[in-house]
Amino acid sequence: MTDRNHLPGTPRDIRALVRAGKLVRPTCGMAPGFVQANLVILPRDQAFDFLVFCQRNPKPCPLLEVLDAGCPEPVQMAPGSDLRTDVGKYRVYRDGSLVDEPEDILKYWRPDLVSFLLGCSFTFESALLDAGIPVRHVEQQTNVPMFITSIQTRPAGRLSGPLVVTMRPIPREQVVRAVQVTSRFPGMHGAPVHIGQPEAIGIADVSRPDLGDAVRIEEGEVPVFWACGVTAQAVAMKSRPPLMITHSPGYMFVTDKRDADYAVL
Amino acid sequence: MTDRNHLPGTPRDIRALVRAGKLVRPTCGMAPGFVQANLVILPRDQAFDFLVFCQRNPKPCPLLEVLDAGCPEPVQMAPGSDLRTDVGKYRVYRDGSLVDEPEDILKYWRPDLVSFLLGCSFTFESALLDAGIPVRHVEQQTNVPMFITSIQTRPAGRLSGPLVVTMRPIPREQVVRAVQVTSRFPGMHGAPVHIGQPEAIGIADVSRPDLGDAVRIEEGEVPVFWACGVTAQAVAMKSRPPLMITHSPGYMFVTDKRDADYAVL
Repeated sequence: MTDRNHLPGTPRDIRALVRAGKLVRPTCGMAPGFVQANLVILPRDQAFDFLVFCQRNPKPCPLLEVLDAGCPEPVQMAPGSDLRTDVGKYRVYRDGSLVDEPEDILKYWRPDLVSFLLGCSFTFESALLDAGIPVRHVEQQTNVPMFITSIQTRPAGRLSGPLVVTMRPIPREQVVRAVQVTSRFPGMHGAPVHIGQPEAIGIADVSRPDLGDAVRIEEGEVPVFWACGVTAQAVAMKSRPPLMITHSPGYMFVTDKRDADYAVL
Repeated sequence: MTDRNHLPGTPRDIRALVRAGKLVRPTCGMAPGFVQANLVILPRDQAFDFLVFCQRNPKPCPLLEVLDAGCPEPVQMAPGSDLRTDVGKYRVYRDGSLVDEPEDILKYWRPDLVSFLLGCSFTFESALLDAGIPVRHVEQQTNVPMFITSIQTRPAGRLSGPLVVTMRPIPREQVVRAVQVTSRFPGMHGAPVHIGQPEAIGIADVSRPDLGDAVRIEEGEVPVFWACGVTAQAVAMKSRPPLMITHSPGYMFVTDKRDADYAVL
């Protein structure tokens, strides 16, 4: 999403290049119109709590697909693909510590691993851009600013923690439209969680994000906050699972589903 | 929903009467404007597959809340309530066979039981009626007709089986509006799964439902089919869990959430 000059190619073509090690770069802008997904992989012992956590917190953790234990093929979102090889770069955590950032996870695979695909904001950012609403970090070609809020997620089993949000400055006359446009995609974080008062959700300085990069807020723009998928990883990590594997930030899994398939109306 | 002359009382009042054994009757029409829910309770060993099944089949199995193992209080949907006593009549199944239909399940409760609340069509039927669209089984004061279709659900672990649907005859000039109105409630079965050709989804005779009661289809009306929550129970039962507890048909759990809380737009 750093520019709109998209790489050509179907999702299948892109996954084949990734699998062959020929396309190890962030996926924003690839396969426009197709859904990209966050990846979280956990042992089955930890997977139940995580699944309940996602059900209770659908805005930060919109579940697109949960795979059977040991199965690396997401048959709904991308039949024929392999989650062990078709992401450009992975992160491997043991007991909550990052231990590896490999280009495939074949050597880490085990029959008890459950894979989760979660919605990603690329879908609603495309919809914002299509509606003529600017997306500042796309213009600035930086990472989206993220903040740890004072809003608590709903805990599940051993999993709990604060909601992480992304911020996009929106021209005040387009804020209502931005709410409408993103509401159409509840599976991709959906409507904003907050509009306009960072301090009301525990953000002391909107120019200093906890993660990602700061972006310019121009005269007449309102900071608008959406739930962020990083919440899921932060919460899962806090419980120090013996093994957790995710995509590396920006290196998303490119699916065969169209953005339009997830529009509610 | 058999008539629109509703019992007075808040959801909390109604649950108190149910808990005291003073209101053992089907809940349709009670607490208008508030969400009523299907209840499924399974041992934790079976709960993971069921949770994945619901995630994969959100139209028949829209999850409203999943409780922690052993917890009988749905803190999101009805804080202070108790799922062991606040439903009028339950069904208890052992190894897939009905063994009891008690008015509370205190004696069956175990610390490993996981409770699921699922969306119910009462919400969207209210919305249809509010939009001036007739709901035939409500007019006829009978149970909604249900059919076992040739559409297969997406399996999860040991759980699989055909989709069960409900049928409502809709005047042909109101079919589009019926799609729009029910699309607003994806958490309550949402948009129809099929319009107009029963044989296309394996229904040989639309006047002979597999479950529930037949309803009249008048000249100029089109049979419209929605995913049905009975799918969840049928599929769970087929796997013969050692214990499964559900509400008894029509005796729903009355929550504190408003229908409007679940409208997507």
